[in-house]
Amino acid sequence: MPKFKCTVAYDGTYFSGYQVQPDKRTVQREIEAALTRMHKGEEIRIIASGRTDAGVHARAQVFHFESSLNIPPQNWCRALNTLLPDDINITRVEHVHDTFHARFNVKKKVYRYRILNSDRRDMFRRLYTYYLSAPLDIKKMKAACPYFEGTHDFTSFCASNTSVVDKVRTIYKLDISPDHDELIIQVAGSGFLYQMVRIMTGALIDVGAGKIKPEEIEQILSKKDRRLAPKTAPAHGLTMWQVVY
Amino acid sequence: MPKFKCTVAYDGTYFSGYQVQPDKRTVQREIEAALTRMHKGEEIRIIASGRTDAGVHARAQVFHFESSLNIPPQNWCRALNTLLPDDINITRVEHVHDTFHARFNVKKKVYRYRILNSDRRDMFRRLYTYYLSAPLDIKKMKAACPYFEGTHDFTSFCASNTSVVDKVRTIYKLDISPDHDELIIQVAGSGFLYQMVRIMTGALIDVGAGKIKPEEIEQILSKKDRRLAPKTAPAHGLTMWQVVY
Repeated sequence: MPKFKCTVAYDGTYFSGYQVQPDKRTVQREIEAALTRMHKGEEIRIIASGRTDAGVHARAQVFHFESSLNIPPQNWCRALNTLLPDDINITRVEHVHDTFHARFNVKKKVYRYRILNSDRRDMFRRLYTYYLSAPLDIKKMKAACPYFEGTHDFTSFCASNTSVVDKVRTIYKLDISPDHDELIIQVAGSGFLYQMVRIMTGALIDVGAGKIKPEEIEQILSKKDRRLAPKTAPAHGLTMWQVVY
Repeated sequence: MPKFKCTVAYDGTYFSGYQVQPDKRTVQREIEAALTRMHKGEEIRIIASGRTDAGVHARAQVFHFESSLNIPPQNWCRALNTLLPDDINITRVEHVHDTFHARFNVKKKVYRYRILNSDRRDMFRRLYTYYLSAPLDIKKMKAACPYFEGTHDFTSFCASNTSVVDKVRTIYKLDISPDHDELIIQVAGSGFLYQMVRIMTGALIDVGAGKIKPEEIEQILSKKDRRLAPKTAPAHGLTMWQVVY
């Protein structure tokens, strides 16, 4: 059966995360419902690159599905978007080889975390940025980044309620850049543990606020103890930015 | 009784406009409910600079109210914001003379309209920008602006279902500027008729799309006939930007 790779943007604000859960509004449920409607009731399942938590956004999440419908790829987007709510937008649909797998074939994932670091809030960015009024020292934050890069056991930066056993992951690049009154944290890695980007962000914020020193990141990593890392930054500042295959 | 001038930002997305209506979620209702709670049930009424329609946002709407509570102005903000929902934010509270009136003393109002003019949508600006994929000619739009400026009868640019008799208003300045992939229309005037900014924006969009010529604005104005002006631009692109006293 023809296989399709889809890229999707969503606003995580009013979703209980990506993955289907009973009685919850989730991204996967909405997309599967739209596809099932297009297939006249035949249930269609989608496989994504990974989950996102409640409140986390996506600029370019990727999923795949199989369909016997004879629709050219360029028409899939509009057909699906017509059936999807306003806070999910399919941005691309491509025909792929049947060996393609949205989860197993991931080469790199990129996340962005937006911090609004200003003396004034912005009503119109409140859903997409984490607001912090106290000035953060970006130099110190930048100095902390290299400690995260490379291959490490990220136990200290993984939510404790996870069933994943192997907590070794590779971070290719972690970078912080100012953008007007925002700080943008961008991280690219082989894959990420549960809440890992948000816990790393929490640590970087503590570095920027002078609560911990940049070089302490190395010690926190080496101790492999979640209790040593600072608290998790809130979900709404985080966006799944890109998935590379 | 001491009188207070308040500046408030709100996200119009989930409000049925500013003004109280039975059984509707409105900005005025939420603020009055918070104030009434602070006054232990004593009903407090607020007077704003003017209404905003359903879906229209505010960066700096202004209202006044009277209160016998002995709270320093700098503490009002926090006290009110604690009781207000996430999509309303009081940004400033000042003690004012009892002759101040938020509606009658307005000297100037400024509105902004954001158009996202790009070949790609942006999920995270969809609530605050009007998306138009077809390129708009900003030079032509700029050429149309001077026809609106000055004192005119704006009957052609006022929604027909209004009870206002005098439709003469003065526009001090109408300007269009590009901001990355957006076009920002900013208009400052003595006051605005019902849906006037949105109908003017609709006309400017038609000018930018080449459907009407810049100089046709003059003719549309002079005919004083709502049926001649193009359709109203959607509410969600519009923000009440500033009120000057």
